[in-house]
Amino acid sequence: MKINNDKPFGIAVVGLGTVGSGLISILEQNKDIITARTGREFQILAVSAKNKKKKRNLDLEHLNWIENPLDVTKLPDIHCVVELVGGYDGIAKELIFKALEAGKMVVTANKALLAHHGHEIARRAEQNGVNVYFEAAVAGGIPIVKTMLESLSPNKTKKIFGVINGTCNYILTEMEKNSTNYDEVFKKAKNLGYVEADPELDIGGIDTAHKLVLLSNIAFNQKIDLKNVSVDGIKDISLFDINSAKELGFKIKLLATAKITDSGSQNEVAPCLIPIDSPIAQVFGSENIVSVDNNFLGQTYYRGAGAGAGPTASAVMADLINISRDAPRPVFGVPEKKMKVSRPSENEFQHSFYIRIIIKDEPGALSHITGILADHEISINRMRQKDHKGREAPIVLLTHETAPLRIKKCINQLTKNKFCIGKPIFLKVEDI
Amino acid sequence: MKINNDKPFGIAVVGLGTVGSGLISILEQNKDIITARTGREFQILAVSAKNKKKKRNLDLEHLNWIENPLDVTKLPDIHCVVELVGGYDGIAKELIFKALEAGKMVVTANKALLAHHGHEIARRAEQNGVNVYFEAAVAGGIPIVKTMLESLSPNKTKKIFGVINGTCNYILTEMEKNSTNYDEVFKKAKNLGYVEADPELDIGGIDTAHKLVLLSNIAFNQKIDLKNVSVDGIKDISLFDINSAKELGFKIKLLATAKITDSGSQNEVAPCLIPIDSPIAQVFGSENIVSVDNNFLGQTYYRGAGAGAGPTASAVMADLINISRDAPRPVFGVPEKKMKVSRPSENEFQHSFYIRIIIKDEPGALSHITGILADHEISINRMRQKDHKGREAPIVLLTHETAPLRIKKCINQLTKNKFCIGKPIFLKVEDI
Repeated sequence: MKINNDKPFGIAVVGLGTVGSGLISILEQNKDIITARTGREFQILAVSAKNKKKKRNLDLEHLNWIENPLDVTKLPDIHCVVELVGGYDGIAKELIFKALEAGKMVVTANKALLAHHGHEIARRAEQNGVNVYFEAAVAGGIPIVKTMLESLSPNKTKKIFGVINGTCNYILTEMEKNSTNYDEVFKKAKNLGYVEADPELDIGGIDTAHKLVLLSNIAFNQKIDLKNVSVDGIKDISLFDINSAKELGFKIKLLATAKITDSGSQNEVAPCLIPIDSPIAQVFGSENIVSVDNNFLGQTYYRGAGAGAGPTASAVMADLINISRDAPRPVFGVPEKKMKVSRPSENEFQHSFYIRIIIKDEPGALSHITGILADHEISINRMRQKDHKGREAPIVLLTHETAPLRIKKCINQLTKNKFCIGKPIFLKVEDI
Repeated sequence: MKINNDKPFGIAVVGLGTVGSGLISILEQNKDIITARTGREFQILAVSAKNKKKKRNLDLEHLNWIENPLDVTKLPDIHCVVELVGGYDGIAKELIFKALEAGKMVVTANKALLAHHGHEIARRAEQNGVNVYFEAAVAGGIPIVKTMLESLSPNKTKKIFGVINGTCNYILTEMEKNSTNYDEVFKKAKNLGYVEADPELDIGGIDTAHKLVLLSNIAFNQKIDLKNVSVDGIKDISLFDINSAKELGFKIKLLATAKITDSGSQNEVAPCLIPIDSPIAQVFGSENIVSVDNNFLGQTYYRGAGAGAGPTASAVMADLINISRDAPRPVFGVPEKKMKVSRPSENEFQHSFYIRIIIKDEPGALSHITGILADHEISINRMRQKDHKGREAPIVLLTHETAPLRIKKCINQLTKNKFCIGKPIFLKVEDI
């Protein structure tokens, strides 16, 4: 078995935050096993970051600091540039384009950049006969990208779904576990450093949408436009909803789903009710899970840490090892030119919905409200009126299967109704 | 992005049972997607099996039947021989050795053969500069082999465990679900075709041991001798045990575990009590699950169908696609010469145990029996005496952590005791 071990594999690391430091650690601590398995030495020949003087848990003494990050692409012994800067524009994008032009392979954990500019990046990589690996960009340490690209590749994928934002899952899990309100748990998560500088990225479901787009690109070999992903966050979920869902046999999770339809793939991020005995419902705290449903393989599940220095560094290092020996393959599994542009379907899938309405505790209110549901041809499967104090009566109901558009129209009408207090909440019930 | 698509990838399939037929189906039904993703055509250029006239769900008309299976290795256009004959000796072994000598790549689903002769096969593959891929040999469609070889490779593995025999899991799940005795469920499983010709392979834990050895070889880069794997089956598990475990908050699963110790890896197959909220406990019917605990990545879980034509064919086809473009890599992840011989540790890990004893309902019996436990320094965490009719009183207890050897000695003494009816059962409690 010949393994090319003539020359060390040269790496440049740009961005020295959590993941960058983790990468340096794994290369040091697991050097023996990595060398045994690859027959080759991996060397970090250049590092760069915004500010050399920033306090880091890292000894820069033995590393070759390059002042201008873009200059690492000029170094001849570098096989691969690891981009860990982040952001969907600016230096990260420039660095990747320059690296590809210079014929360097690229490893990145940057889901935002790939979700926005992935197809252009794929095209440029192919033009230059190189590749971009991005295992760490989706679901942290769970090797879902490589698995989909290589192990699931003989299959036609019908559906992907999962919990792929640890921050949201941490918040929802803590709310349930400790019966704490959203605002309180959010503050705690922020103090623990779990929330990004722009909280909307996590809480608003945008980070989840970035990751979903990457998985969808691979699963369906289609170009998914981020703008066509329907995105809802978890801000409107109250402890009341979590408890009501529990009583009905469900957990609330921020679910990413992608299905294939005749016209393209349908991508959605939304908090959903998940049956309590589903593997998806049993993922706690910052863990992630992804499920893929394939025509021959059937349903498989992948579960593990969704973030953190160790898991993410493991993913980046696995990419580096694979690059050092893989034959060329397109970034998203098929040549960029052969990826169809996905046009989301106009068919709407029917669903059962959870609706929470707060009504005034007045005679006739309930009958009036349920009458509006009936007017929209929404039929009720289960309904509960909760104990309440004062003049506000919360009502929770599960509908039979119905079209989302019907629900939206009904909710709009209810919001304006005199018996209704505030805007009712509606969540899909996902039977997975 | 250059992909070698000058020449079709030539395949010979030997063995045309469930998996072989599944492979032919997936190549037909998913031809478009496979070609799009690989840029290459995959062609079955030869087939062979024991008996041409056997009734098959398969049209042999368009396939090139070769009378003597070994002759497929002589065909020049064959890149890869797919061995689906089975058995750890005989024609399967001969075919693989001949294929490797002829410089052909090999794909096999044969766990028994690889568990018995894997190291020799790896050596011969390396000598001939080819490789043997075996994704379908472990956990059906779950891509655990490739994941461990390629995605987890930067890590030092601490522990692997899982439920990797669908037949046993089906039996245990059915017993619990329908409150049915072992014998009855076993008959049902046999009628459904879930049990191998030699039931001992499944029920006795041997098939599980075969698969565990393969995962251990990869995880620890050590040569595991099948003889050193401690193997217990599920025959002694009664409905009484399943119900008692449930009351205590556990499920009984046939668990495969491998841990690393200073002297080598410790491999064990045994029915265990698993906490009801562990992902391992929530795998039902013929599903499989594998968990790997790594020093950087942490714990990840992989779950899916453990058998069946579709999942297994998907695994074989993924191997073929990967072979068509992978750079050479050793069979078990490191060159065979560099794999240390594993000598199992003499340290015994301490465990909590479940013990079920049937005692005679006579004055002083319970005190006498618990006295024997105390003599062996086994301390009791929880104990239950069950309702009973007649003169047999079943007792269930959970011990505090103690050495397995101590338990075994105690059980031997209890078996001979005049107050004891039959041999008590003891099962590990695995806190995973």
